[in-house]
Amino acid sequence: MPPETILQKENNFSEWYSEILKRAEILDIRYPVKGVYVWYPYGYKLRKLIYEILQSLLDKEHEEVLFPLLIPREELMKEKEHIKGFEEEVFWVTKGGSTELEIPLALRPTSETAIYPVFKVWIRSHRDLPLRVYQIVNTFRYETKHTRPLIRAREITSFKEAHTAHASRADAEDQIKRAVALYKNFFDQLAIPYVITRRPDWDKFPGAVYSLAFDTIMPDGRTMQIGTIHLLGESFSRTFDIKYEDKDGSSKFVNQTCYGISERCVASVIAIHGDDHGLVLPHEVAPIQVVIVPIVFSSGEGGNNEVKQVEEACFTVQEALKEAGIRTFMDNSEERPGAKYYRWEMKGVPLRIEIGPRDLRNNRCEFVRRNDLKRMHVPLSEVVPEVKRTLKEIHEGIFEKAKETLRTNIHKSEGIGADISAEEMEELRRRAGRGIVSLFLCEREGCGNELEEQLGVSVLGEAYEREEGEKNEGKCLFCSRKAKNVYVARAY
Amino acid sequence: MPPETILQKENNFSEWYSEILKRAEILDIRYPVKGVYVWYPYGYKLRKLIYEILQSLLDKEHEEVLFPLLIPREELMKEKEHIKGFEEEVFWVTKGGSTELEIPLALRPTSETAIYPVFKVWIRSHRDLPLRVYQIVNTFRYETKHTRPLIRAREITSFKEAHTAHASRADAEDQIKRAVALYKNFFDQLAIPYVITRRPDWDKFPGAVYSLAFDTIMPDGRTMQIGTIHLLGESFSRTFDIKYEDKDGSSKFVNQTCYGISERCVASVIAIHGDDHGLVLPHEVAPIQVVIVPIVFSSGEGGNNEVKQVEEACFTVQEALKEAGIRTFMDNSEERPGAKYYRWEMKGVPLRIEIGPRDLRNNRCEFVRRNDLKRMHVPLSEVVPEVKRTLKEIHEGIFEKAKETLRTNIHKSEGIGADISAEEMEELRRRAGRGIVSLFLCEREGCGNELEEQLGVSVLGEAYEREEGEKNEGKCLFCSRKAKNVYVARAY
Repeated sequence: MPPETILQKENNFSEWYSEILKRAEILDIRYPVKGVYVWYPYGYKLRKLIYEILQSLLDKEHEEVLFPLLIPREELMKEKEHIKGFEEEVFWVTKGGSTELEIPLALRPTSETAIYPVFKVWIRSHRDLPLRVYQIVNTFRYETKHTRPLIRAREITSFKEAHTAHASRADAEDQIKRAVALYKNFFDQLAIPYVITRRPDWDKFPGAVYSLAFDTIMPDGRTMQIGTIHLLGESFSRTFDIKYEDKDGSSKFVNQTCYGISERCVASVIAIHGDDHGLVLPHEVAPIQVVIVPIVFSSGEGGNNEVKQVEEACFTVQEALKEAGIRTFMDNSEERPGAKYYRWEMKGVPLRIEIGPRDLRNNRCEFVRRNDLKRMHVPLSEVVPEVKRTLKEIHEGIFEKAKETLRTNIHKSEGIGADISAEEMEELRRRAGRGIVSLFLCEREGCGNELEEQLGVSVLGEAYEREEGEKNEGKCLFCSRKAKNVYVARAY
Repeated sequence: MPPETILQKENNFSEWYSEILKRAEILDIRYPVKGVYVWYPYGYKLRKLIYEILQSLLDKEHEEVLFPLLIPREELMKEKEHIKGFEEEVFWVTKGGSTELEIPLALRPTSETAIYPVFKVWIRSHRDLPLRVYQIVNTFRYETKHTRPLIRAREITSFKEAHTAHASRADAEDQIKRAVALYKNFFDQLAIPYVITRRPDWDKFPGAVYSLAFDTIMPDGRTMQIGTIHLLGESFSRTFDIKYEDKDGSSKFVNQTCYGISERCVASVIAIHGDDHGLVLPHEVAPIQVVIVPIVFSSGEGGNNEVKQVEEACFTVQEALKEAGIRTFMDNSEERPGAKYYRWEMKGVPLRIEIGPRDLRNNRCEFVRRNDLKRMHVPLSEVVPEVKRTLKEIHEGIFEKAKETLRTNIHKSEGIGADISAEEMEELRRRAGRGIVSLFLCEREGCGNELEEQLGVSVLGEAYEREEGEKNEGKCLFCSRKAKNVYVARAY
């Protein structure tokens, strides 16, 4: 039976999110270890479809590999900057059976230090470059902050990490551009809008030359980092001694990049598109794209014969849709239609098709779009092309809506900097933490901390792709030094 | 350049196996932690294709889930028999950052104790049964014995474990039969022959009522367990309090089964089919099913025009094969044909197609079958159907050969038991450890130990499916008590 309460997404996002994970059967949080969760079958299907898109994009120019989970302490500690960024977050295996291990083994927080010693033996010559690999693995962070399923977990069950090595800095920079294009393509398919920024120097990936990040805005106004891309340059290749012999016979360090996406991509699909009725899934990743509900009443005129005809019509539609490659489910369970609507709306099925006796008499069925619950009659003979068209339309609809929400939550201003008026400062305080604000901030970490303290927001960074004519020189809000326009937000 | 040495599989299996993993680029063993390895891209593709077959079989009546890696000590310790079987093999996480964890966390050696506390909350009513789930995960064993890639590793990167819950013992027993059928189907597709036995009581899965196992015989005469199926009955459901409400309102414990396959299935494909030239892959799992090699010589009569024509013909064949859904690669690198043959034979590509100028003049090409290196001419117009036919033929060929090898390595005798003659005992000693021997042994662990000590072999168990008319009652070889016919072998 559908619970009485209707979920309230607005002003209540955190509770809504937990409820949705449970009711739509995405993740079960009742596992007896903090910060780790169980994927339900339905959630796992959603995860799988999302990662299949990511993999099909990666497979075009990367090869899939698999490196070990366990990293010896010594390797993990090699890159000084890198380990500083992770040492307080690493889980350590110290015992095997009742034996104390001689060398403690880290559960990978990320795999640079597992992969690069092997790159050293894989790469010999310029002919081995570029080397582009990726893996999808479980990674671990000993999170001491508040944990949250898919967003801040101790076991990230599905971390996609790509690692590339190139002959030159220019080639590596070019790979960064390709990675940006790939991630854009991926999030477009999820109908997830984003901003891309270059993280401030003091917040880049430990060991990187610079880091780019994709962020989206969550319904509570906080931003969530959903993808990162790092230019590593020669920092790791020098530490791990990864060299190649160039055409002229000289020995050179490779230039590297790495880029990652975690299951936050699943969280974003749930959080951005969902509504008070549950999930709203773009058809690309919906485990069930169309649910068919026969509208039959076992008593009343017409009787059994009519029931049979309706069910047959539903079955015919189902077969035609399956034939067309559409993931279709016919719900002919004995529940009342209302209970069925509740369940499949909760699970985010993009399109529901209802067929009742009256529809049948008119050779039609009824479409109900999940995103706006709009109804329309469709002739039975047109079902397949109309489903295809409608699924696309729904994708466009939810993407447009999400983009519009993102746009209205980015508060651009050319003026916010050292010369800010008291009134503007007041406005800034009001806005801070509710979406993204752009302002002038210098590159010093101190001013970033000041921002954090005074406004409770952090720096995302400079926009990666600047709009034409945008003003990008000003004075730092705090120290009045020369500053660039950066995005700031309260971040997950 | 191809190394000079030819691999010797016979009498030299162990070295051959290591060399093949390296030369065919399956696993890199140069990772600095004992017993864990790196999957090369080619090896990972092979692994992926093998597991895709397994998943497509499982997906028919199981749902995929994902449970956490970390198991709290208390949960792992709950099932007394179970933990006795694993406690000396468990890796323990004891620290997060610099903090000592309050509760040590085990890296799953297998997931019963992670999954069943959650089954307890998932299962409420008879309507929730049967519950059939599986996951493919990394599991860990602190192996103190000699480790070996894919066969005995500390990180099993791809453990497929299925877990089911049923309303009755009969339903659970029925699931055991389905699991047996599923595994048969799986290994048939890999062209891997097996024997199925019921393990002796003292060697069953810790906590099970009984265990069935699939074993195959490796080229060195030792058996390798490649799949196990366990009837758990109520032992875990009583420990973890997994009950359901039956139709009559009564509360009952569920009956359970579990069954697993590790990456030993990959090892078996490599070891059983491979030969002195490298891997021999059945087309179902071959990352490349057909390699096309243009036979061209840059100098000589005909010259560039002929080269161009040959390459065009190769390209046309490639496109036709790809169109037909066949994984095809055209090797038009600048290496000599011999070097290409070496590489693709090493990688186990089932079929090579060569096209040279003379072939072209005759509107034909040449097929070279990987399994027996037999050559045949095929008209260009017949390539696609002939490739399909030949790939099937190769599968049948390698399967028949493997079955024949298995058969000749099972030494059945109706006589070996208490009344064995001195001559027969001598023969038994000679045979022991080289394949499987059947003999009469009682069910006491002491006699199993005796067998181990005297002949260096262990008990696989009674055959699961007995041949008609086979004698199954005799006297134990060691204690003369009533005994059944069992298979014994030196096992991996």
